[in-house]
Amino acid sequence: MSNKKVAIIGASGFTGSELVRILHYHPNVDIEMITSESHTDKKLSDIHPFFNGIVDTELESVYDLHKHHIDLAFLALPHGVSMDYVKQFQKFDFPIIDLSGDFRLSNAETYQKWYAQEHIFPEGFAHAVYGIPELFEDTIRSSKLIANPGCFPTSIILALAPLMKNNLVDINIIADSKTGVTGAGVKAKAVNHFSNVHDNFKAYGIKTHRHTIEIQEKLNEMSRYENKVQFTPHLLPVDRGILSTIYLKPSNSGFNNNILQKTYSDFYSDSYFIRLLDSSPSIKNVRGTNYCDIFTTYDERTNNIIVVSAIDNLVRGAAGQAVQNMNIIFNYDQHCGLEQMPLFP
Amino acid sequence: MSNKKVAIIGASGFTGSELVRILHYHPNVDIEMITSESHTDKKLSDIHPFFNGIVDTELESVYDLHKHHIDLAFLALPHGVSMDYVKQFQKFDFPIIDLSGDFRLSNAETYQKWYAQEHIFPEGFAHAVYGIPELFEDTIRSSKLIANPGCFPTSIILALAPLMKNNLVDINIIADSKTGVTGAGVKAKAVNHFSNVHDNFKAYGIKTHRHTIEIQEKLNEMSRYENKVQFTPHLLPVDRGILSTIYLKPSNSGFNNNILQKTYSDFYSDSYFIRLLDSSPSIKNVRGTNYCDIFTTYDERTNNIIVVSAIDNLVRGAAGQAVQNMNIIFNYDQHCGLEQMPLFP
Amino acid sequence: MSNKKVAIIGASGFTGSELVRILHYHPNVDIEMITSESHTDKKLSDIHPFFNGIVDTELESVYDLHKHHIDLAFLALPHGVSMDYVKQFQKFDFPIIDLSGDFRLSNAETYQKWYAQEHIFPEGFAHAVYGIPELFEDTIRSSKLIANPGCFPTSIILALAPLMKNNLVDINIIADSKTGVTGAGVKAKAVNHFSNVHDNFKAYGIKTHRHTIEIQEKLNEMSRYENKVQFTPHLLPVDRGILSTIYLKPSNSGFNNNILQKTYSDFYSDSYFIRLLDSSPSIKNVRGTNYCDIFTTYDERTNNIIVVSAIDNLVRGAAGQAVQNMNIIFNYDQHCGLEQMPLFP
Amino acid sequence: MSNKKVAIIGASGFTGSELVRILHYHPNVDIEMITSESHTDKKLSDIHPFFNGIVDTELESVYDLHKHHIDLAFLALPHGVSMDYVKQFQKFDFPIIDLSGDFRLSNAETYQKWYAQEHIFPEGFAHAVYGIPELFEDTIRSSKLIANPGCFPTSIILALAPLMKNNLVDINIIADSKTGVTGAGVKAKAVNHFSNVHDNFKAYGIKTHRHTIEIQEKLNEMSRYENKVQFTPHLLPVDRGILSTIYLKPSNSGFNNNILQKTYSDFYSDSYFIRLLDSSPSIKNVRGTNYCDIFTTYDERTNNIIVVSAIDNLVRGAAGQAVQNMNIIFNYDQHCGLEQMPLFP
Repeated sequence: MSNKKVAIIGASGFTGSELVRILHYHPNVDIEMITSESHTDKKLSDIHPFFNGIVDTELESVYDLHKHHIDLAFLALPHGVSMDYVKQFQKFDFPIIDLSGDFRLSNAETYQKWYAQEHIFPEGFAHAVYGIPELFEDTIRSSKLIANPGCFPTSIILALAPLMKNNLVDINIIADSKTGVTGAGVKAKAVNHFSNVHDNFKAYGIKTHRHTIEIQEKLNEMSRYENKVQFTPHLLPVDRGILSTIYLKPSNSGFNNNILQKTYSDFYSDSYFIRLLDSSPSIKNVRGTNYCDIFTTYDERTNNIIVVSAIDNLVRGAAGQAVQNMNIIFNYDQHCGLEQMPLFP
Repeated sequence: MSNKKVAIIGASGFTGSELVRILHYHPNVDIEMITSESHTDKKLSDIHPFFNGIVDTELESVYDLHKHHIDLAFLALPHGVSMDYVKQFQKFDFPIIDLSGDFRLSNAETYQKWYAQEHIFPEGFAHAVYGIPELFEDTIRSSKLIANPGCFPTSIILALAPLMKNNLVDINIIADSKTGVTGAGVKAKAVNHFSNVHDNFKAYGIKTHRHTIEIQEKLNEMSRYENKVQFTPHLLPVDRGILSTIYLKPSNSGFNNNILQKTYSDFYSDSYFIRLLDSSPSIKNVRGTNYCDIFTTYDERTNNIIVVSAIDNLVRGAAGQAVQNMNIIFNYDQHCGLEQMPLFP
Repeated sequence: MSNKKVAIIGASGFTGSELVRILHYHPNVDIEMITSESHTDKKLSDIHPFFNGIVDTELESVYDLHKHHIDLAFLALPHGVSMDYVKQFQKFDFPIIDLSGDFRLSNAETYQKWYAQEHIFPEGFAHAVYGIPELFEDTIRSSKLIANPGCFPTSIILALAPLMKNNLVDINIIADSKTGVTGAGVKAKAVNHFSNVHDNFKAYGIKTHRHTIEIQEKLNEMSRYENKVQFTPHLLPVDRGILSTIYLKPSNSGFNNNILQKTYSDFYSDSYFIRLLDSSPSIKNVRGTNYCDIFTTYDERTNNIIVVSAIDNLVRGAAGQAVQNMNIIFNYDQHCGLEQMPLFP
Repeated sequence: MSNKKVAIIGASGFTGSELVRILHYHPNVDIEMITSESHTDKKLSDIHPFFNGIVDTELESVYDLHKHHIDLAFLALPHGVSMDYVKQFQKFDFPIIDLSGDFRLSNAETYQKWYAQEHIFPEGFAHAVYGIPELFEDTIRSSKLIANPGCFPTSIILALAPLMKNNLVDINIIADSKTGVTGAGVKAKAVNHFSNVHDNFKAYGIKTHRHTIEIQEKLNEMSRYENKVQFTPHLLPVDRGILSTIYLKPSNSGFNNNILQKTYSDFYSDSYFIRLLDSSPSIKNVRGTNYCDIFTTYDERTNNIIVVSAIDNLVRGAAGQAVQNMNIIFNYDQHCGLEQMPLFP
């Protein structure tokens, strides 16, 4: 069987370069084209020098897409831009995996409220499927448009799905997340100036971060309850990694730690990338990989359930999960080409 | 008026060296002696080379204490060791500021349960006063034994005192704290190996950290409610700093952001070291100082109050607060000798 | 005697904020005005939030300088801009300490060659004095224009002055320097993006860095030889600090380690801020201070002299040295207001 | 053809875990056994948790080696210990790749002088081959004992081989190297305490580092001159990576940049892992990989040649190079199983 051919639309950011890093050695896929409107005719290694001598592919314009045979396209573009490309690509037949936030929410009104901009699909995005492979494999397989989940939502939804699907928790959810700097993008700005990040730590987007609604909508879809998610992101002085510490209350009395552990081990018994740990995960143990490490415990003293999860925001939180979704669409093993080891230390 | 003379008992750790860093230039205090049983007859600058040429004082044994006139002693010792010194020092007349956890809790039973060791004052520590200067100035002034608060409790108690004293919140408290590595001490061990900390982040002590009970006891003393504190510390790849993100619910309906802001600005109107901010504090903005920066907000959507506080764990969370307590005892301005600027960046 | 009044021209950068950090508590100086053309009418703490509640001074325009009585002005401006201000300020009588590179070189031609731009004082800058206090105290005292040295040159010239003034070394000098990120300025750009700096290290400006000529000219002035300086800077993943490792050969046979040590201890016997160490200095031991730590050794096997020096680039390499120069001009002790302790860790 | 079976002797350190990280997915090799005398019967993932669920192999004692069929053994042991194992393993027939310093030098006397301990092969180690694959492929292929080079020597010898083999440089060599912390080992000690490394930088081992003699001996073997190497290592606040900045003088007049560039591009035209760059390499661009990035330039002003090289000390400086040597012995492509991408950022 010949390799599938994919296009990576948008190569200047961390998500685009990470897609290349993973796909270049994928055994059943060839990168057919990489586009960048701002760097057309440069080589990928000109803008990401670590690819020097490894991937020196010339960057093309997206307007040359018709010159290639493409089996699937990844959109590694900012939200707001991505939806335009989805519209243009409707004339093509290949499935699209969109790594932006443009198609993750339930409808255009909600999008407009949280993203403070118009959506060009006001009729809604029912055709888009939310791409968490462990949870939605069947719908992903048959979809032409995958909304690849946000990095924080991935870390929180994977961490809570077993509780939600079993309706084991109360509606009040506190998700205290900490992320590396790459989440803020490749463009230089005050927020990612070394001197503002190094030896520093702070919260941001309190009450208002866009991922709040994405998390809440998906948790609500999985549960019979109408949850309220309090999501607070913080900025860590590291490149990669998200650790989410999540606090919930059981919906019923009689809850205990055995129920909790069994719920998770049953739910994730066949999941290659989910590692259930017996102490807190750490972000360096998943660095560069598609794993999601999860620890759960119940505190009888306070009647709180605590769930801690760790992912690499660029891999599991973006490019790796996108490749996992692609593997489903192409009927490959979910972990095909995704067996990178954690880089520790 | 001649300067007061103080002793620093235990100089090999970060807390001891930080006391010297602050007190060396205190205008009304002289460091009369610095002790270290493991480094007696070395110079302070032999074990902390940054003092080279600045503080080359010879370290003495505590057994030579009687050779000096001492007006106050700081104990910068591990818990479990500190109580022995307090017992020995009862023959002297000077007040003691103990930076360990030995006298912070309400009674010996609770100590033994959370610290897993015997206490040699089984009759209790009613004579010890918990030393948060903004909250307990009057009792501190007249005490002979100050239990200098733990670093995490300082960051959380200062952050919540206005709510507690006004009985504005429900009994369920989530305190998600993040600390720099110096909290784990100067001794080399796996937990502070550079490669385990750098580019990494994790939770630890979930459900069981000793500061949990210290926080809960003090909050309960300030409030009419019996609070349950869920405290989760995390380890940041930085040297100094604690940021605590705290989630609570109002005890009554009708709560709003105006009430919240007024409660804090009234409560801390005269507090030199409390800075109320209009966005999240960051630990680098208080680095090297005795400030506690606090941000508060109320989320109508979820009915949660969120409080974020930042301190330097070695200054406000240890040596700086100890000097502030000393200033009260000596009737100096609370900020005397504590006017270090944040070192940013 | 009433306090002297100084102006800080340019407050948005790291050098400007560092001048405020140091001068705010200087016992004999008041900051009379702080200017910023881009942030006029904001408060200093709006652009440097760590000053919140400490220095909330309103920023003024330099055009309001005439409204104040000023005893001395610091120019914390980019090179190329600074010379314009020097020209404008000629109508005033106060001395100027210029922290840019505009007046450090010997003449306009050399400036134009290495800085690739015109100089508006083509007749030369004989009126400017190069401000290393330990070396040029007398000329500094009587000057109206101090060219405050570059950060790398400070670390190298202080490290080599004893050898140069005694003509003990050959003309071939290798200076391999490593600097923190603050040297690249406060403005966000690719070079100071966290992800390009963190966990990374590289050389830059090989053969061409502007400080090369500044170092070489000053060393040549101190020595009878015409030295050739090979200067290579590198970028460290830290905020502050420069460590220079310098390799030279003795000019005569019969050189030994005793001669070397005596040369340095004699030369710097009265220098408050120079600390001669018996092993390599480290940048964290001088962090936040005006110290210059120096280690020297002679390797008989290779006939090389090795000198290692460490400074804080923002203090000794900029604002601290500027204040030290100011102290000389005002006839204060050189270390007056500069007794900050190293912040370790 | 069936896969070769290898043993990894010593798994508790960074070198051992890195061998597993690389070899686990090597297409033509199986890890037959992993030993650790201090952790026998634990799983590898107990001591290196990032292997959790990926490599949970039980650790064995080296005394069970005879129970396995082994085609090659890697010794990831401290120097001084390694030679004992080499002696014991003489009864077996498989080739050994020793990652310690025990067999890198020319003779036992030199070893004893620089390593300050006896060598148990006083008759010499003529049977050991120094394992830099690009330089000694033929002798490596036929050897039973490979002395895998030191991390610093690898970075410097690869950087200078083209100049040495062509006798283009003078005998005075300055090698100023900077390394990440993993070079100091996995065991917790003051030198790798986070607070001593983070935000810090210093030189160490000046004049006396053991790698000095290793570098000098190998350079001398490649050149007709008797070189003198001045080697100064420094400690970077990063986990991985060595950058060496090397200064030399041409041996003849008439040298120029064209000669320099052509010498390197000719010499390394067929070398998969050598990347010749047109600006300074950076350690993050080779992180996690076996690449050695090299930049060379000639400064006419000073008549100096400057060579800058970057490697990952755990991969190219240890485990990766060992696998490359293994590939030669097994007649695989040198890069087989070594195609890891740099992890950037």
